[in-house]
Amino acid sequence: MPSANHVVPHFQDELELLKVRLLTMGGLAEERLRTAMGALVDRDGDLLDAVEAGDEPLNRLHIEIDSQALRLLALHQPMAVDLRMVVAAIKINTDLERVGDLAVNIAQASQRYLAYTPVKPLLDLPHMARIAQGMLRDSLDAFVRRDLILSREVLARDDQLDDLKTVIFRELLRHMLGDAATVAPSLELILISRHLERIGDHATNIAEDVIFMVSAEDVRHGPRDPSPHR
Amino acid sequence: MPSANHVVPHFQDELELLKVRLLTMGGLAEERLRTAMGALVDRDGDLLDAVEAGDEPLNRLHIEIDSQALRLLALHQPMAVDLRMVVAAIKINTDLERVGDLAVNIAQASQRYLAYTPVKPLLDLPHMARIAQGMLRDSLDAFVRRDLILSREVLARDDQLDDLKTVIFRELLRHMLGDAATVAPSLELILISRHLERIGDHATNIAEDVIFMVSAEDVRHGPRDPSPHR
Repeated sequence: MPSANHVVPHFQDELELLKVRLLTMGGLAEERLRTAMGALVDRDGDLLDAVEAGDEPLNRLHIEIDSQALRLLALHQPMAVDLRMVVAAIKINTDLERVGDLAVNIAQASQRYLAYTPVKPLLDLPHMARIAQGMLRDSLDAFVRRDLILSREVLARDDQLDDLKTVIFRELLRHMLGDAATVAPSLELILISRHLERIGDHATNIAEDVIFMVSAEDVRHGPRDPSPHR
Repeated sequence: MPSANHVVPHFQDELELLKVRLLTMGGLAEERLRTAMGALVDRDGDLLDAVEAGDEPLNRLHIEIDSQALRLLALHQPMAVDLRMVVAAIKINTDLERVGDLAVNIAQASQRYLAYTPVKPLLDLPHMARIAQGMLRDSLDAFVRRDLILSREVLARDDQLDDLKTVIFRELLRHMLGDAATVAPSLELILISRHLERIGDHATNIAEDVIFMVSAEDVRHGPRDPSPHR
């Protein structure tokens, strides 16, 4: 480890710090998602309030990481894989910030859902959330370890999220058609499933950025483009 | 204008080319949105098919712009506002690609909507689309002209989109509660309104990136943070 008595810190030290910060941010985002989903299942309005109000630490990290990445580019002018890594960090930072926003969106929809009689036991939505959390965690691990295999594995999991979303949609539609009292609360659950799907999309973006970073291969619009679906 | 007989093209020439490409991409994305919404209103399934199948040119530009921006960073190692401009271009590129995806999502939901009896005359959704298109166009103009005033003006318009989305949601909920036959098609219209809102969010992101690029001021989590709402 280089000593701290340099005016310009070593590039690899700064990059390490950037990675740590991104992992911290990812941990926070994941934690907020887990809390929101737990509060939905436990019907805990206070905890949902806390999620809605608690976006500040993530937002602060978002700004810090962006400034740090820009400083890194300006001071060290990295090349090749190092350059791609810093650019990937900038993109991943944006994705993680959006995941934090989506946790707020989920808390808000959950809050509205709690005003109604429950439509059904919540099993599929927490299942979706666990998959999305796993994708997020693994995509960040793949970034830190520059792990192509894990990245591709994250991409493959997006289909599970998509299938679950469709199952949830069909089931809720059936409820809505059968009983008008379930229409408004079911709409909230459908919205939550879309928010969870988008969290999976962000993990997918991260995994694609890692693949590009490591291999300089652009998989984003290849034959298995996971982007637009319902 | 510098001559073309340099091995390494001039930074400003390359930056100009990057801007032109981003504008082309923005024009394409806007065009696809306009086509999808027109086809929804005219109930033109063939045109919707064309939008669903036509993402390729945008995807190609997305990859080209990213590579060009990375090359620019590696070859010219720009500083200060030039560096922030290239990083902004990388972010804007991502936003525009998502707008293209959202046009596909809108075309898909519209296609499903056409299978049902129309729920209502479509006035508010095209209105939302026009606002989102205007925000997108102006945010890109602001990028090219480094225009802070126009950027802030784009941010201000996001509230209109949000209000319209809420109006649409309430009206459709009323339909759904009154007549079960409207539930499934109304759901598609609600999804379309969410896609349009997200296009506005992308324009907002672009405007915020422009403000940061020009002034190095981070407005993204200030007192008027437009991010998470229903």
